[in-house]
Amino acid sequence: MSPRFTDIVAALPEGAPFVGPDALMRQSGRVFRARLGANESGFGPSPRAIAEIQAAADEAWMYGDAECFDLRAALAAHHGVAPEAVVVGVGIDGLLRDLAQLLVSPGDAVVTADGAYPTFDYHVAARGGAIHRIAYRDEHQDPAALLAKAEAVSAKLAYICNPDNPLGSWHSARVIARMIAAVPEGTLLVLDEAYVDSAPQGTEPPLDTDNPRVIRLRTFSKLYGLAGMRVGYAIGAPHVIAMFDRIRDHFAVGRLAQRAAIAALGDQPWLAEVCTRVAAARDRLREIAAGQGLHALPSAGNFVSLDTGRDGDFARALVAELQARDVFVRMRNVAPLDRFIRVSAAPEAELDLFEAALADSLRALG
Amino acid sequence: MSPRFTDIVAALPEGAPFVGPDALMRQSGRVFRARLGANESGFGPSPRAIAEIQAAADEAWMYGDAECFDLRAALAAHHGVAPEAVVVGVGIDGLLRDLAQLLVSPGDAVVTADGAYPTFDYHVAARGGAIHRIAYRDEHQDPAALLAKAEAVSAKLAYICNPDNPLGSWHSARVIARMIAAVPEGTLLVLDEAYVDSAPQGTEPPLDTDNPRVIRLRTFSKLYGLAGMRVGYAIGAPHVIAMFDRIRDHFAVGRLAQRAAIAALGDQPWLAEVCTRVAAARDRLREIAAGQGLHALPSAGNFVSLDTGRDGDFARALVAELQARDVFVRMRNVAPLDRFIRVSAAPEAELDLFEAALADSLRALG
Repeated sequence: MSPRFTDIVAALPEGAPFVGPDALMRQSGRVFRARLGANESGFGPSPRAIAEIQAAADEAWMYGDAECFDLRAALAAHHGVAPEAVVVGVGIDGLLRDLAQLLVSPGDAVVTADGAYPTFDYHVAARGGAIHRIAYRDEHQDPAALLAKAEAVSAKLAYICNPDNPLGSWHSARVIARMIAAVPEGTLLVLDEAYVDSAPQGTEPPLDTDNPRVIRLRTFSKLYGLAGMRVGYAIGAPHVIAMFDRIRDHFAVGRLAQRAAIAALGDQPWLAEVCTRVAAARDRLREIAAGQGLHALPSAGNFVSLDTGRDGDFARALVAELQARDVFVRMRNVAPLDRFIRVSAAPEAELDLFEAALADSLRALG
Repeated sequence: MSPRFTDIVAALPEGAPFVGPDALMRQSGRVFRARLGANESGFGPSPRAIAEIQAAADEAWMYGDAECFDLRAALAAHHGVAPEAVVVGVGIDGLLRDLAQLLVSPGDAVVTADGAYPTFDYHVAARGGAIHRIAYRDEHQDPAALLAKAEAVSAKLAYICNPDNPLGSWHSARVIARMIAAVPEGTLLVLDEAYVDSAPQGTEPPLDTDNPRVIRLRTFSKLYGLAGMRVGYAIGAPHVIAMFDRIRDHFAVGRLAQRAAIAALGDQPWLAEVCTRVAAARDRLREIAAGQGLHALPSAGNFVSLDTGRDGDFARALVAELQARDVFVRMRNVAPLDRFIRVSAAPEAELDLFEAALADSLRALG
């Protein structure tokens, strides 16, 4: 006899929200020469963060600070909020899991966009939540429709990413601020700003930690280039943030991870330099796409979504062709978003490989 | 208005299962000269693991492999089981959280010993589980009573640590094997072997991954000396292990963490050397205690529990006196275990500090 898994778990689909690059390489038996599918930062983290990891390696025998005190203090100073308004977690993924556990009982409603970051859905489903999905509108998230749906279904959580993942489109701070002001009573707006560091000025609405209706998620995995260290954070009203301490895995953020994040945060010139390179890479990707007759969506993230102008089957075939040429890109298997392929900003050499592989792949597909 | 936290979360106590050493230092405004309270390994990890972290630091921009393929393969080879029988998590703490989510619905029964590792209780409580606690018996876990209670309450999970934390006592492989054979139908025995690496030969029953009624938990945080990297693993029947993939945070185990763990696992001579040093440190702690008229429990872990021969108030005062002398030790605030203080094995210099501080502290307490 098996252990008695909960009814919710027994009914869940097998496996992960998506397959990671290392697993894809094993499946194909090849090594990606251009790793452009996970929106990792091929520009790397601040050299100071690397040096900090190396210097702190002999401290690996000690647990990290369960309160992430120094990192929270640094984040609080950086953002001009109180440390009590910040909680650090195992990436945004870990914080989404915490949020689902804090708020979602079986049957509770949440809302998100159909095709947006699937790990939100994954953790909500694992709690037995009822996921309501709204459509994208002209390749953008639709704040008004999201809130209308949240109100209609009395959603506990409403999830939006700005800039959007996977499309890279974004709303201005003004639009998002208006959205925050209109969150229905009883709903927590989860504003995932994983990619806000590379967005244009005027994308990020002011932080207001007096407002318990919104929580902002940030990460060191994207523009800060520390995906492998697992550090994200949430900013919100202190009495909301305090609730994480009731359920989170207190020692989960590693010691070197915390030190690396502090070092990375302290090197804002590096972040600015990365953002400059990301902007140049986006331009280059747009040119590469245009050279093949593909339209690149404007993007505020460290990636660009390219419209194949065809359907999901074509995009899937294109992703497979690129992968056969050792170039890793990603797509969402949800219509109508499945006509896009998503390509991460990266150094020139990888983009050169992508350019050649894209031309070859499109030729192979006729 | 606040977000609508679940009823379970709203009813939970605030805060962590216990306060970590870094937080304690901040509270006191002092720096521990002897960090002997978290059963970290002051002997450090394998130099190979440190070198691996340093060499891999510039890979920190990449996510770790979500399947932990290489690490699982190495663990499978090491233990002589199939890779499908192994899942890697964010330490044993993270795996306990996963187990609670997999198996515990509100009101579901679990059993544990009163005073055993509290993070099990913490994650079960966060799921609304009903925790039944049995007493220790002569400073040992009581397998028969645990299983009898599990059967009586139809427990989903029965938790036992062997060697025991906090006491360090242990049962032989024969006793544990008999226990495994007697697990009632519908119960999953969670056998936490965090400290088994330093236990005498004959403590670890054979691994049998055909048996779905037991799951074994191991960690790189203790004898392997990598607490700060957050890597633990579970071994069990493949169809039980596969269920973790439905709910776990797939990218939570960091890239450097995986590489460090592989390097540490590959350096078994270092582990053996650490275990030799741990045994010597246990002897030394026993002598130090005897010199002050305290009895040291025999221990199979990388720590020793010292019987103050008094009550919890006295032990609490002793812990505070030691801390005032910059020596960190821990105790459990659960009678009758609260007459013990728990002291980690450590290099000579720290034990010298402990010896002096213990004498001074006992003198101060009269």
